[in-house]
Amino acid sequence: MKVIIIGGVAGGMSAATRLRRLNEEAEIIIFEKGPFVSFANCGLPYYVSGEIGERSQLLVQTPESLQARFNLDVRPHHEVLSIDSHAKMVTIKHEDQTFTETYDHLILSPGAKPFVPPIEGIAEAKNAFSLRNVPDLDNIMTVLDGEQPKEAVVIGAGFIGLEMAENLQMRGIKVTIVEKAPHVLPPLDEEMAAFVKKELEANNVRVITSQSAVAFKDEGRTIVLEDGSELSSGLTILSVGVTPENHLAQSAKIELGLRGGILVDENYETSQKDIYAVGDAIVVKNQITGEDALISLASPANRQGRQVADVISGLKRKNKGSIGTAIVRTFNMTAASTGLSERAVRLAGLPYQVVHTSGKDHAGYYPGATDITLKLIFNPETGTIYGAQGVGQKGVDKRIDILATAIKGNLTVEDLPELEFTYAPPFGSAKDPVNMLGYVALNLMEGLSESIQWHEVKEAVANGKVVLDVRNPSEIKQGQFKDSIQIPLNDLRCRIHELDQNQEYIISCHSGLRSYVAERLLKQAGFKAKNLDGAFSLYNTVLPEEIEHV
Amino acid sequence: MKVIIIGGVAGGMSAATRLRRLNEEAEIIIFEKGPFVSFANCGLPYYVSGEIGERSQLLVQTPESLQARFNLDVRPHHEVLSIDSHAKMVTIKHEDQTFTETYDHLILSPGAKPFVPPIEGIAEAKNAFSLRNVPDLDNIMTVLDGEQPKEAVVIGAGFIGLEMAENLQMRGIKVTIVEKAPHVLPPLDEEMAAFVKKELEANNVRVITSQSAVAFKDEGRTIVLEDGSELSSGLTILSVGVTPENHLAQSAKIELGLRGGILVDENYETSQKDIYAVGDAIVVKNQITGEDALISLASPANRQGRQVADVISGLKRKNKGSIGTAIVRTFNMTAASTGLSERAVRLAGLPYQVVHTSGKDHAGYYPGATDITLKLIFNPETGTIYGAQGVGQKGVDKRIDILATAIKGNLTVEDLPELEFTYAPPFGSAKDPVNMLGYVALNLMEGLSESIQWHEVKEAVANGKVVLDVRNPSEIKQGQFKDSIQIPLNDLRCRIHELDQNQEYIISCHSGLRSYVAERLLKQAGFKAKNLDGAFSLYNTVLPEEIEHV
Repeated sequence: MKVIIIGGVAGGMSAATRLRRLNEEAEIIIFEKGPFVSFANCGLPYYVSGEIGERSQLLVQTPESLQARFNLDVRPHHEVLSIDSHAKMVTIKHEDQTFTETYDHLILSPGAKPFVPPIEGIAEAKNAFSLRNVPDLDNIMTVLDGEQPKEAVVIGAGFIGLEMAENLQMRGIKVTIVEKAPHVLPPLDEEMAAFVKKELEANNVRVITSQSAVAFKDEGRTIVLEDGSELSSGLTILSVGVTPENHLAQSAKIELGLRGGILVDENYETSQKDIYAVGDAIVVKNQITGEDALISLASPANRQGRQVADVISGLKRKNKGSIGTAIVRTFNMTAASTGLSERAVRLAGLPYQVVHTSGKDHAGYYPGATDITLKLIFNPETGTIYGAQGVGQKGVDKRIDILATAIKGNLTVEDLPELEFTYAPPFGSAKDPVNMLGYVALNLMEGLSESIQWHEVKEAVANGKVVLDVRNPSEIKQGQFKDSIQIPLNDLRCRIHELDQNQEYIISCHSGLRSYVAERLLKQAGFKAKNLDGAFSLYNTVLPEEIEHV
Repeated sequence: MKVIIIGGVAGGMSAATRLRRLNEEAEIIIFEKGPFVSFANCGLPYYVSGEIGERSQLLVQTPESLQARFNLDVRPHHEVLSIDSHAKMVTIKHEDQTFTETYDHLILSPGAKPFVPPIEGIAEAKNAFSLRNVPDLDNIMTVLDGEQPKEAVVIGAGFIGLEMAENLQMRGIKVTIVEKAPHVLPPLDEEMAAFVKKELEANNVRVITSQSAVAFKDEGRTIVLEDGSELSSGLTILSVGVTPENHLAQSAKIELGLRGGILVDENYETSQKDIYAVGDAIVVKNQITGEDALISLASPANRQGRQVADVISGLKRKNKGSIGTAIVRTFNMTAASTGLSERAVRLAGLPYQVVHTSGKDHAGYYPGATDITLKLIFNPETGTIYGAQGVGQKGVDKRIDILATAIKGNLTVEDLPELEFTYAPPFGSAKDPVNMLGYVALNLMEGLSESIQWHEVKEAVANGKVVLDVRNPSEIKQGQFKDSIQIPLNDLRCRIHELDQNQEYIISCHSGLRSYVAERLLKQAGFKAKNLDGAFSLYNTVLPEEIEHV
């Protein structure tokens, strides 16, 4: 058996090593266009700040180590130019020579390439780079070490954009982020991304949203935005998204799907016999909606690579699709998501409701506890979990990983309170924030509580509803809702006569727990009341301009 | 509706507050024998070292705050003496007065009490304490602050015993732990507990296993062990386990089950109508075996308390049972478990296999990565997950929480590789240790790999098998298997002629990954070979005396 693999990073290299473990006799050749294989592409941004100190740490394996350990024929600097699926042959270019190789099985793992926006003057912008691989990083480091720029601009506030912004700022460079969407981290919803924006600004990163770059001037040293304003930039990072690397697949007349992604069946086989594809370039099934999706993440790519080796070796394995789980650290703030965002659920036209909870990463009475805000998006009729998001300083990865596991296991909202987690004071709480998501969502589903979302408050107040703030006076000093009534929760029973039975109230506290207690109290006393989901802590983060400081 | 709750900590107080949120009119009285309600019992050990600095931090709520917020009638120092289930009445003692109260619903949340072993002279041992509540803590602190003992003995190396050992050592006291079982942390299996033992000893805690205390002498200042040896002790902590507090239930002729636990149905109702019970005192269904179990943990107690309030209020809620998830930090080592241990599975007579994997808490190329060792116990025919255990410095809580969620979701071994976790270099790896558990277990189930366990090596070698160590020479210097052959993995293909086709090999590397690669290589070349599960890192921890240092 002779297997050719095109692309020697996550998916391709996982396929190669698994194939060897399954088949000692197979001839396995890996062609990689670039100079390196099996490098740590998710680690590249951290070399910019020096947090990863040695470039060699990014080079996990070399052709020599892979030859020694796995008897793999790894050929960097080899670009496959074309595929002849009938002759089962590929044409390769290496150092201005071309040659051919035949195959029994061909695995495409070309990845996704950074989308380069068609901005005027981009060709002349010598200081503008994408970051996909080690040569890209080397180019960036050459500018950083050589020209010592004082200002940098990051265009695109997705995961890589934010990581680059952080690492550039940690080098002492003044960073401006320009994002076309209305908020940073477009994969997350606006109110969750607001925590990240706040952290960026607290660390002196300037954030400009709802703006694109329309032109580069002065060989890239000046960037013109839509509104005509100009930014000066000594280094520009282009991180506006990726697009499947599909030109080889196209040349082989392989069927493409969503946004040019390579279509594969449940065996990872493309429309051409004996040609398989894995990784960021393929269209996968979103396991929640059942619809086609492009998911550019290392974890699914590695799994797919291993699975395609199993398929080729005759083991029973299926391409089941992905849900998409991602995380980014921005200074002291972590933001993570799994499954569908609220926006994606809304666009898909699915029935949904959301809840936000705020809790501590571990027991509040043990030192060092920090806030975690979680969001759950679910079907209020069936309890199906569509997705979850989290922000906080610590423990966000754990909660989102748990919720990703719950989604994979088809657990519902009703199951979340039943989950039993490790609890000792340094690690968690007797009622973990994930349990609380379930309790809060169940209260809504069972009609015990009604909620209003942060973006609905302004209109509700305009229509005559009144915010009842049940925080303590010391908390009110940190900011208050406009035109709100304030009665601390502990005084509510004895001061209930101050409220008007004909008035509808929106109740808030700091995190949403006390306001829910107040809501139950008022509801049972015959009042109309809704709980402000996420309460003051969320509202103050996403709409700080709506908060008064007295 | 009038509800009486006996016991004002986890389960009882969760029931009370939920009841109030559901029913503003109910009369709710909580009788608590001790002086405090709603205190942080899991935090008590951390006050000993001063890590929790203020005693008030342990007192989460007071009767006054609970009255103000929830209109609860909370009565500490009230001991319920008896229950008359026919008259629906309880008799209470308070300051030498007794009185009665009637109820519509009665909730028992008495907890579990520390088992006090019948050791000779224990009644005279004035420096020997259990740790269940704040008065116990106060007694311990009186000895610590007053007598300033230099030596302490902890009898029982379970979760509380280890926490007390750590916190006493952090005060500068020389601590000795005495455990009757053959290893510390009896809820975990021996080889996993060995990591904790190593950490204790590295922090100057003396560990004595397979020994009981048989007598206290000199008012407790001398402790005599089974083997006749004596320990001097300025303070002794008794933490040999707990037993359900069932004397009130007995007095009401409520049916008891396993080890005196209170029997309840799926509505948490006892054998006596309108008397419910929750928390550490009740018998629960182990959700994995379906058998009766006693699980003394805060998380299930809190859930049960809330659920019994739902049941009483007419909401649809069921007592589904528990799996048991627990964690303990011992200095820089964390140990956690969920579901059944290997020992429990073996005793239950279930078909099982285990795998151990060793990985990093986050990407190895990013600074600060530390080792995690995970163990999975599963059914090799169906892939059902029985339980999991983990040890390591960081990230153990996350992995065990994920696996606890997987067990609750009935995920199998085959599903573990499909789980998609948050991955960025500071948080995880593209193939998380949890994914790896699945891959390794699947390799066994599909016949690609065979393993041998750490406790089987000695006999196998005596029967003629040979250990083939594929680590590098620099690693061999850290210790080697007796009578082993050493060929680094990368040299194995060219030195394979040095091996004997008639010899059976046990292959080991450091963590088990390279040895598996070597196993596949040898198997395909016609050799008989098994992979040492957990490899050198596990073997060297649990059986250091079997390792040679050359």
